[in-house]
Amino acid sequence: MTITAVRVTPIAFRDPPLLNVVGVHQPYALRSIVEVETGDGFVGLGETYGDTAMREGLTAVAPHLVGLDPFDLAGLRATIDRHLAAGTDAGLSVAPGTSRRNLPVKVDAAFEVAFLDLQGQLLGRPLVDLLGGAVRGRVPYSAYLFYKFARHRSQPEDDEWGAALDPDGIVAQARTMIERYGFESIKLKAGVFEPDAEADALRALAAAFPGAPLRIDPNGGWTVATSLRMAAQLEGVLEYLEDPAPGLDGMAEVARQVGQPLATNMVVTGFEHLPEAIRLGSAQVILADHHYWGGLRATQHLATICRTWGLGLSMHSNSHLGISLAAMTHVAAAIPNLTYACDTHYPWQEDEVVEGGKLTLERGALRVPDGPGLGVRLDRDALARLHEAYRTCGIRDRDDVAEMRAYRPDWTGALPRF
Amino acid sequence: MTITAVRVTPIAFRDPPLLNVVGVHQPYALRSIVEVETGDGFVGLGETYGDTAMREGLTAVAPHLVGLDPFDLAGLRATIDRHLAAGTDAGLSVAPGTSRRNLPVKVDAAFEVAFLDLQGQLLGRPLVDLLGGAVRGRVPYSAYLFYKFARHRSQPEDDEWGAALDPDGIVAQARTMIERYGFESIKLKAGVFEPDAEADALRALAAAFPGAPLRIDPNGGWTVATSLRMAAQLEGVLEYLEDPAPGLDGMAEVARQVGQPLATNMVVTGFEHLPEAIRLGSAQVILADHHYWGGLRATQHLATICRTWGLGLSMHSNSHLGISLAAMTHVAAAIPNLTYACDTHYPWQEDEVVEGGKLTLERGALRVPDGPGLGVRLDRDALARLHEAYRTCGIRDRDDVAEMRAYRPDWTGALPRF
Repeated sequence: MTITAVRVTPIAFRDPPLLNVVGVHQPYALRSIVEVETGDGFVGLGETYGDTAMREGLTAVAPHLVGLDPFDLAGLRATIDRHLAAGTDAGLSVAPGTSRRNLPVKVDAAFEVAFLDLQGQLLGRPLVDLLGGAVRGRVPYSAYLFYKFARHRSQPEDDEWGAALDPDGIVAQARTMIERYGFESIKLKAGVFEPDAEADALRALAAAFPGAPLRIDPNGGWTVATSLRMAAQLEGVLEYLEDPAPGLDGMAEVARQVGQPLATNMVVTGFEHLPEAIRLGSAQVILADHHYWGGLRATQHLATICRTWGLGLSMHSNSHLGISLAAMTHVAAAIPNLTYACDTHYPWQEDEVVEGGKLTLERGALRVPDGPGLGVRLDRDALARLHEAYRTCGIRDRDDVAEMRAYRPDWTGALPRF
Repeated sequence: MTITAVRVTPIAFRDPPLLNVVGVHQPYALRSIVEVETGDGFVGLGETYGDTAMREGLTAVAPHLVGLDPFDLAGLRATIDRHLAAGTDAGLSVAPGTSRRNLPVKVDAAFEVAFLDLQGQLLGRPLVDLLGGAVRGRVPYSAYLFYKFARHRSQPEDDEWGAALDPDGIVAQARTMIERYGFESIKLKAGVFEPDAEADALRALAAAFPGAPLRIDPNGGWTVATSLRMAAQLEGVLEYLEDPAPGLDGMAEVARQVGQPLATNMVVTGFEHLPEAIRLGSAQVILADHHYWGGLRATQHLATICRTWGLGLSMHSNSHLGISLAAMTHVAAAIPNLTYACDTHYPWQEDEVVEGGKLTLERGALRVPDGPGLGVRLDRDALARLHEAYRTCGIRDRDDVAEMRAYRPDWTGALPRF
């Protein structure tokens, strides 16, 4: 069983005008869909970032995977090492998804999932069985709330979610999302408004959903002083405080002085960050993300590290479709010490690229797909449609800052904001 | 594919009178052979320690594995958690192989290998493919030299190796071992004679085998002061100094003052030891051993930790036969950052329990077995013979101290010796 063809297809799907500390989501989010085919007709799937660097990295490696055995993850890594160098980033605080520094790791992750999908298909077993089997049959996700505009500039009418720009809007959004999907934990993407206003929203959520674990994530948009002030305000309200301040040092300074655990997907985004983060005590919860940690196996290694050093573990998400959700669910199902519900942007996406349309979240959780491999198959019509959207949407790299500048010409996206 | 039967067979095989810091090997070494059978006729193999506690732990768990799927390593772990509690140890410095503290982890490891063997057989692929594939086709081992008596008290004649009680004896032993197996690295088990005499042996080896990487392992038998004196004497001679002084603190004190890396399989024997060991800088090389680290997957996690924190990685060994050697070789083949040749006692064992007799080391390395699963099968006649040896040998727990007391009635085995 060897690989006979590899395809990388960039796609774009509709994304609402969700606000964050650096700006606002563009009308389309980009992804790359990876297909790895074997002679005997199996197709392994992967889904990852769709920015230019990522697309170039994937296509640089793809032809060299022909002839490899899908069980040869070591060969995959060696092939990537031969054909793709890590790049450098212009800015200091580039998000892991768009960084060029970890490009080989991200390319490895995308193809590893496709290889594991093939392994599962060959075995006729769900992918999780190749990760040691499931410790849970359902993986809990959290309601991922965003401040948002009612519509994109280009849209004539409000989207179905409408605006959420104050505590009432956020509570209404949470209510809709929880009614639809049954989430039991709630996360608020923050760093958008004055911190006190965001704390009001948190308290409104706590009042509206008593007992639901709450998180707030200003994406490093607060200074250490602001973080300390907010942590004091939110003492007892939060299960964790995510990335309040920038940098390993900033986070460590906050952590030393507050009661609740700090979580991060910004200052610890690769194995190389762990020694210093642990030494400084910069975070107490790591938000894993197989897309940039190097794949599903690497995520399991990270989980062992978290257990060994007494760190909590949850999962980060970017805008994604069903292939990524399936992969996230298989690996989360295999990790004993998944101590918090995972994040997912999935409810914000109307489009889908897998057969049968959107996967179904019940009581806030996704049942581990029980088909062979990932348990999802590509809908080729949807793929063609979303590729056409990529071709025509005019977006080639995610740029929330530029998008916000269309609303506020003086917008810089500089951090920390508050 | 579910498990229909599990067998645990204690065996004893001949072992030469090898000397170490606490005493001398008994005439027989003990192991447990694990067989996990599925309805469709596959038999997965595991090999581990054969002491009373281990045998009891394995047999307490064995019947409860019937009905499990061999891909369900999570179910294996859960079953062990339900039916086996960690024990406590009387002494402070009990070897990981005979400790009751890590009994569940060792039981997990033994069955995990058998489960993975079954997975490989079902797939028709070598076990290493289930670990991500091989980064090397041959796994290098080191010549493991021992001071030794010419024969056990009970033997009428010298064994084929004869005595090795001084530098000439050690060099002669190395020459025989390297002629037979082609080893390129050399390890001397030490802590037996005055440290200066052992340093003489090391220097004699360096002169006789120029360029061969050398290691010495006094098993924590030296004080910190002795360790520092010996490290200074052996500067430039050793690739690493293994477990010179006892305890995480003792090792850290030595490490702070010497140039060469310290290796350990005594002060870091489980994930729970890593945070403190890394904080203190107690060791620069970890000697992995899947038998007590929790299995082959856990050994891969350990390898990631070593790479992440910049620690070297090699492999520890106890007296063992071919099932263990095959398992060690599969996992070592899958680990990119195996930075040193592995240890093995294998050349000291005449007996074997696998079909075809002893596996063949060439140029100091074992080629990764390419048959399905572990690539070794049980020789049932040999198993019966070695089980009979267990039944009649009178040994139920390894006790090098008591064995030495037969030669030297005043022997205590207390550490540090020098």
